[in-house]
Amino acid sequence: MEKKWRTAITQHVGHETYIRGYRLLDLVGNLSYAQAVYLILKGELPNEKESKMMEAILVSVIDHGIAPPSVIAARAVASGGNSLNVGVAAGILAFGSAHGGALEDAMRFIQEGVSSTKSVSEIVREYLESKKPIPGYGHRYYKDYDPRTKRLMDIAKDLGFYGKHCQFAEEVQEEIARQKGKRLVLNVDGAIAAVASEMGFDWRLGKGFFIIGRVAGLVAHVYEELTTEKPFSKRLDEETETEYTGTPPRELPPEFRRR
Amino acid sequence: MEKKWRTAITQHVGHETYIRGYRLLDLVGNLSYAQAVYLILKGELPNEKESKMMEAILVSVIDHGIAPPSVIAARAVASGGNSLNVGVAAGILAFGSAHGGALEDAMRFIQEGVSSTKSVSEIVREYLESKKPIPGYGHRYYKDYDPRTKRLMDIAKDLGFYGKHCQFAEEVQEEIARQKGKRLVLNVDGAIAAVASEMGFDWRLGKGFFIIGRVAGLVAHVYEELTTEKPFSKRLDEETETEYTGTPPRELPPEFRRR
Amino acid sequence: MEKKWRTAITQHVGHETYIRGYRLLDLVGNLSYAQAVYLILKGELPNEKESKMMEAILVSVIDHGIAPPSVIAARAVASGGNSLNVGVAAGILAFGSAHGGALEDAMRFIQEGVSSTKSVSEIVREYLESKKPIPGYGHRYYKDYDPRTKRLMDIAKDLGFYGKHCQFAEEVQEEIARQKGKRLVLNVDGAIAAVASEMGFDWRLGKGFFIIGRVAGLVAHVYEELTTEKPFSKRLDEETETEYTGTPPRELPPEFRRR
Amino acid sequence: MEKKWRTAITQHVGHETYIRGYRLLDLVGNLSYAQAVYLILKGELPNEKESKMMEAILVSVIDHGIAPPSVIAARAVASGGNSLNVGVAAGILAFGSAHGGALEDAMRFIQEGVSSTKSVSEIVREYLESKKPIPGYGHRYYKDYDPRTKRLMDIAKDLGFYGKHCQFAEEVQEEIARQKGKRLVLNVDGAIAAVASEMGFDWRLGKGFFIIGRVAGLVAHVYEELTTEKPFSKRLDEETETEYTGTPPRELPPEFRRR
Repeated sequence: MEKKWRTAITQHVGHETYIRGYRLLDLVGNLSYAQAVYLILKGELPNEKESKMMEAILVSVIDHGIAPPSVIAARAVASGGNSLNVGVAAGILAFGSAHGGALEDAMRFIQEGVSSTKSVSEIVREYLESKKPIPGYGHRYYKDYDPRTKRLMDIAKDLGFYGKHCQFAEEVQEEIARQKGKRLVLNVDGAIAAVASEMGFDWRLGKGFFIIGRVAGLVAHVYEELTTEKPFSKRLDEETETEYTGTPPRELPPEFRRR
Repeated sequence: MEKKWRTAITQHVGHETYIRGYRLLDLVGNLSYAQAVYLILKGELPNEKESKMMEAILVSVIDHGIAPPSVIAARAVASGGNSLNVGVAAGILAFGSAHGGALEDAMRFIQEGVSSTKSVSEIVREYLESKKPIPGYGHRYYKDYDPRTKRLMDIAKDLGFYGKHCQFAEEVQEEIARQKGKRLVLNVDGAIAAVASEMGFDWRLGKGFFIIGRVAGLVAHVYEELTTEKPFSKRLDEETETEYTGTPPRELPPEFRRR
Repeated sequence: MEKKWRTAITQHVGHETYIRGYRLLDLVGNLSYAQAVYLILKGELPNEKESKMMEAILVSVIDHGIAPPSVIAARAVASGGNSLNVGVAAGILAFGSAHGGALEDAMRFIQEGVSSTKSVSEIVREYLESKKPIPGYGHRYYKDYDPRTKRLMDIAKDLGFYGKHCQFAEEVQEEIARQKGKRLVLNVDGAIAAVASEMGFDWRLGKGFFIIGRVAGLVAHVYEELTTEKPFSKRLDEETETEYTGTPPRELPPEFRRR
Repeated sequence: MEKKWRTAITQHVGHETYIRGYRLLDLVGNLSYAQAVYLILKGELPNEKESKMMEAILVSVIDHGIAPPSVIAARAVASGGNSLNVGVAAGILAFGSAHGGALEDAMRFIQEGVSSTKSVSEIVREYLESKKPIPGYGHRYYKDYDPRTKRLMDIAKDLGFYGKHCQFAEEVQEEIARQKGKRLVLNVDGAIAAVASEMGFDWRLGKGFFIIGRVAGLVAHVYEELTTEKPFSKRLDEETETEYTGTPPRELPPEFRRR
């Protein structure tokens, strides 16, 4: 009878663990962590170029400071008196459609675009007409080009990953400028999306790269919170930093008064 | 053979659900929600006084404004682009030892104190000498008495729940004042702890009352965030509200430069 | 300047907490918990009929046994050696689009249907033609009617909440039978959705009723796990209950062998 | 005035991100991910030996199959209809004191042991007399030695990390055998703990290595669940796999019947 818990990832043979068919103990000391990540996600070992590209992607998202919602959530939860894993999990919860989601959306956009019969010009026109933002394009500060995109694309070129997905991503950037009369740069989410697509990863895994890369930043933040700040830290001063916009004080109607 | 998933809470007989032995459909329309909470936690139906006491406890913790870590975490996670359940869960994660944990600790303190052979005076002396805070005592603003404690204790007296646990809790308050020469008021966590102990609940369930009562506040906050605020809201301005205390900018050593 | 943390739910005046304008201390001992839930979600106090309807809704979802994904997740997390709040939060995380989401979807369907200019017959036809399931309809066992729906609808009738939303919901049930030649019963999610819509709640709050009602069940399950089962319980026997569907054991290629 | 949000991890200068003082863009393409992890956790760049040791540690915990509570929780939550990040977070929640916690406990044991004035023999005697398990020792199957420990210790020796912490850890293993007359092997948690201590990491970070290494496994499992299994999968058959141990069906007492 078919079993209800099925997996193609890991198997135990005797007391030995095998990851995607390889004995885990053989991987320890022989693979870099990013190579093992590649293996567990893709099912096959990376070659040297794939290994280097994976390292670059994971490093590029490792942290972005204390202000993003994920770090606020992680440190607030830790501050409630919880252990490291609970704070880190709260941070990962924050990686919704507006926080890391652009990477997944951009991968989907690029993969569907590359396999579409429509021209780049048609694809861009449809988006612009629908007024939906094109995932992976636009940046608050960078108006000419995003230096992180340039860095990743340079590495991709050197390693041989500048193929049709990356080309499509950059063509869309130029096409937006042409149709809109204004540049929306291919941002770092879009760049990672293009390269990961080039490497053959499914867009449904997009947020996974962000989660795996950023988790180290979250661990560092929660550890810092637990070791340098007081529990239940009053980061938000209710009197000066919050605003009440609701109904002013009123009396409980007499029919509710039992006491 | 003994099965691995065992429970004494809920059973299905045919397609009917039974909670602690009662047909769920019979409970709907006949029990208040707080009565059903009492039943599912305690295993038996409450009488009228127990029902009223449970309502009072749950209402007393329903919300405490936007500033606690739980609400900050819940709203930050929602703001990352997640659905209602994910934001609410992040809020509940924040209920660690420093946020709701006092209720559990105070229940344990009171239950162990009541069944101890030591006198109140000895118990208090040991705590004061060890410099550990006594859980359930002390408040930032209330120095004479905590009005929420008074409210709950008045209700407990009317309903017949002012027994040995409540007496013990108030005796400790007086004994602290005597030995320390300074009042540490029995706060609202301590008051709920005393009353819940009087009702026969195990201290390990303490945080459960807080979770069940406060979840409605969290739902209201996350709903408000999702319907009135923009995603990825920039609540923390990195330039003006954060401080970097680490290593100043430095050059990557040449031995690391591959490109 | 407009503040970044705004709320219309709770305000502190002096050291007193006000919920939707009412002094929290006045609510304690005067409101049932379900009345307080209604107040905090809706912004106004319920009348007697609204109070009873709210009690019935919350009780109807309080637990559904040990098998749903939420309880499995909650108990697995608790079993990893975590405290009550962490297990409960994991359970709430499981309330995604396939677990409690039907309530939200059905509320949306009913609210949009009632305010639509299309006829019930057109609405049903469009769904059936698109082969999308109609949220709130169909049940594995109940083919004639869902007894839980009957119970809630009877209560709604008695309390005066059987208005256009409930009527629409039941008309859709009959229309499906007519067009499809087969009954898909209005299930309990659909019934709660109809009644909550009748009470004027926004569909975006739909999952909130489920979360608030079910959280008591989750607390009971996690407490039971923590007090009656061993930590890291081996509920899943790897040898007999799991199946490996991946690549069989293979050798690490020599170019990866550094040791 | 001192700001409320302080961090020593990451700084923005202009629009550039600096991690522990190094420009993030310089790290991309130059550091392996494990090197970046080392940097963000420790505050300094690793040398070549530290880099290799870190890779080995992270790879060694990357996955352990479908049966642990973390994977059950992660897949159950995903199965409820949630996105990748929510499932992964649920898995991380499960890393409590009984699941990954041994690594943290063993690091603390080793670090305190090494800096203690007591002899190994005294330390072991105290534990054995108190009947508390010594964290990091003992294995269900391995009775002579744990092959994973051997692998990590061999690597540690080659890289120069076999110092006083590793020696202490192995001496404890021998001392247990001597005093108890039975071997409790230094297991893989204990081995990682010894090596990470040797590298100068604080025991409070212990679970962090486990979280960072295992997160890739969780991403793979949740992705697999989302792409190969049906939502709300019925993994637990209520009739055959669960056991009800509670009160048998009984009638709701008449005083509760309002309808």
